[in-house]
Amino acid sequence: MPASVAALRTEVLDFEPYAAGLSIEEIRERYGLESVIKLASNENPLGVAPLVQKRLKTAAGLAFRYPKPDTPRLRKAIACRMGVDQSRVVAGNGSDEIIDILIRVRAVPGRDNVLAFKPCFSMYKIQSKFLGVEFRQVPVEADFTYDLDKLAERVDENTALVFVTSPDNPSGFAPKAAELEAFARSLPPACLFVVDEAYMDFAEPEEAYSIRNLLDELDNLVILRTFSKAYGLAGMRLGYGLMHPDLADYLMRVRLPFSVNILAEEAGIAAIEDTCFYEATLQAVRSGRERLAAELTAMGCVPKPTQANFLMFTLPEACSLSAKDVFEKLLERGIIIRPLGSYGLPDSLRVSIGNEHENHAFLRGLREVLEEARA
Amino acid sequence: MPASVAALRTEVLDFEPYAAGLSIEEIRERYGLESVIKLASNENPLGVAPLVQKRLKTAAGLAFRYPKPDTPRLRKAIACRMGVDQSRVVAGNGSDEIIDILIRVRAVPGRDNVLAFKPCFSMYKIQSKFLGVEFRQVPVEADFTYDLDKLAERVDENTALVFVTSPDNPSGFAPKAAELEAFARSLPPACLFVVDEAYMDFAEPEEAYSIRNLLDELDNLVILRTFSKAYGLAGMRLGYGLMHPDLADYLMRVRLPFSVNILAEEAGIAAIEDTCFYEATLQAVRSGRERLAAELTAMGCVPKPTQANFLMFTLPEACSLSAKDVFEKLLERGIIIRPLGSYGLPDSLRVSIGNEHENHAFLRGLREVLEEARA
Repeated sequence: MPASVAALRTEVLDFEPYAAGLSIEEIRERYGLESVIKLASNENPLGVAPLVQKRLKTAAGLAFRYPKPDTPRLRKAIACRMGVDQSRVVAGNGSDEIIDILIRVRAVPGRDNVLAFKPCFSMYKIQSKFLGVEFRQVPVEADFTYDLDKLAERVDENTALVFVTSPDNPSGFAPKAAELEAFARSLPPACLFVVDEAYMDFAEPEEAYSIRNLLDELDNLVILRTFSKAYGLAGMRLGYGLMHPDLADYLMRVRLPFSVNILAEEAGIAAIEDTCFYEATLQAVRSGRERLAAELTAMGCVPKPTQANFLMFTLPEACSLSAKDVFEKLLERGIIIRPLGSYGLPDSLRVSIGNEHENHAFLRGLREVLEEARA
Repeated sequence: MPASVAALRTEVLDFEPYAAGLSIEEIRERYGLESVIKLASNENPLGVAPLVQKRLKTAAGLAFRYPKPDTPRLRKAIACRMGVDQSRVVAGNGSDEIIDILIRVRAVPGRDNVLAFKPCFSMYKIQSKFLGVEFRQVPVEADFTYDLDKLAERVDENTALVFVTSPDNPSGFAPKAAELEAFARSLPPACLFVVDEAYMDFAEPEEAYSIRNLLDELDNLVILRTFSKAYGLAGMRLGYGLMHPDLADYLMRVRLPFSVNILAEEAGIAAIEDTCFYEATLQAVRSGRERLAAELTAMGCVPKPTQANFLMFTLPEACSLSAKDVFEKLLERGIIIRPLGSYGLPDSLRVSIGNEHENHAFLRGLREVLEEARA
């Protein structure tokens, strides 16, 4: 290792390489398959909205222009859609960027800490660690519900941010809005409370779970949303935060000015306009998860209740295969789902809700794998 | 200001709002103009490559999929184009992201410093300041050349990174490769030497100015390049760094895994394939800058020699208007160029090399403004 690399910050030298998920192409090549189904990354089961595809084609000729740094048209469309003032909206290169900036503007390395449940979305931990900030975690309950009192106990005067994902990934659990509200009100006013609502569109009904109506009242509340799931734009990298206008102003000052791609802005606006596609997505996810839960149960698997566009489950008790075995046997059949070893849940699997064809193929594949194991 | 905002890091509370450039739409509306020409952001004079536009249209349906975190196809195409091993290539959401990550992996706040010339690309300073790292600057010479010995004098044992832009923005000056090489060899081996070659494609000949052939030899050398200029993809946000494979590996570990948009990857690959467009761009810029320099000189202006796709100039000595006046009078005529007050150069103006129509319109507009001032 050259001197210039040996001199990198200690936190960086400790970093593990990012474990990338598998792509359709890799599995197609590895097993010589014609068709591969990916239900591993909670992408939209209906693909890209027709209006978005049309807009992307029309806007292709704009790609040589710099975007406007504060993405005003997109922020206006988001503000209108979410019923908040535009001054509360910060758009980012995925909500990943907002998470990173929130930690960086607020947490002082060596003094502050960041708090979340365990397991949680890995980005909270990775970005805290990269900054050199203590990352505290409180385990979720055995049934994957949240004990928010236990979380509150770990908050101290140096807790800079608390992250809560609702609905949670990978379990699909969502705490009731009233519980989150009570927790939010118990926090010190200088502690930012970040509710990551990446999957909130799929909660039924949304109002029972989201506390974004409290933004006007709670100055330290931040709501994160994304275009990656219900809006079908995972590849365009578009997320946003809703927060106090003063906080939004500082985030806009420090973020890389052109982090949101000019076509991502166009795509985001079109995705908000295409309400038909959005409704069809919610419908597909809500009916798909009911069907998957029912059929998994019929196979003897144990699915967790979910408010998201994915479903976590364990295998039948009598099954001789491990979750990892089942994951691999599905891969051989061209079906990619997500093993949860990296979340510390080696006995669980997570499957994204697909379209009818994908759901059917997954269920058929899993049935075959389980039957073979019994034979 | 609520307690949660007052508690932000001191460096953040000191941040000035980003001063955004003017867009074509704003000027069109402000002055009720039909046609507006923008020569303010060094965008590609020929727009978006035909092959890129075609690829973007074909790939629009992919927008719902997450990109592959390490963008292997794009990195392979870049490696092939630049004649380096793929393990040396890190792609980012614009070279802005690479600049940010380079500073963050290496510089320790309160101990290290980052060094650059003054004026320089604002991102080096902004990202150092955001991190809380000392940012040192050495003024360029009165004629905008670099005294690299003076720069070397400011390097000490805590200099984590040195940034040099070549060709420089806003002057267009590029130091000779031999001078940069001597400077690079004089640096302590643990100090990263980052040569930002955003505009290097336009240097004539490139080999006389670029030191990227030294990558194999100098472990601490980093070369930054971008798709925003010669490849016509400013809006897609795509840049990259070439560096030692070990350093590249750490950058890939800490960067946000999906920072490069899936369509940006497709566009970047297509842009590399469209060699006709690239050559036409270089031709348009090289002939355009000769013409602009000649005609500006004929008007009594003083253009600086430039190796980039823009040109910096001062007004005729006898001119009664300030550079800011001229900038504003051009705006009224629907021509946006760049005043350089924010670079500390209130008497200078910068104009991007446009296509023939744009160059002509700019020259005609400027001639009118200068003639009116004499009348």
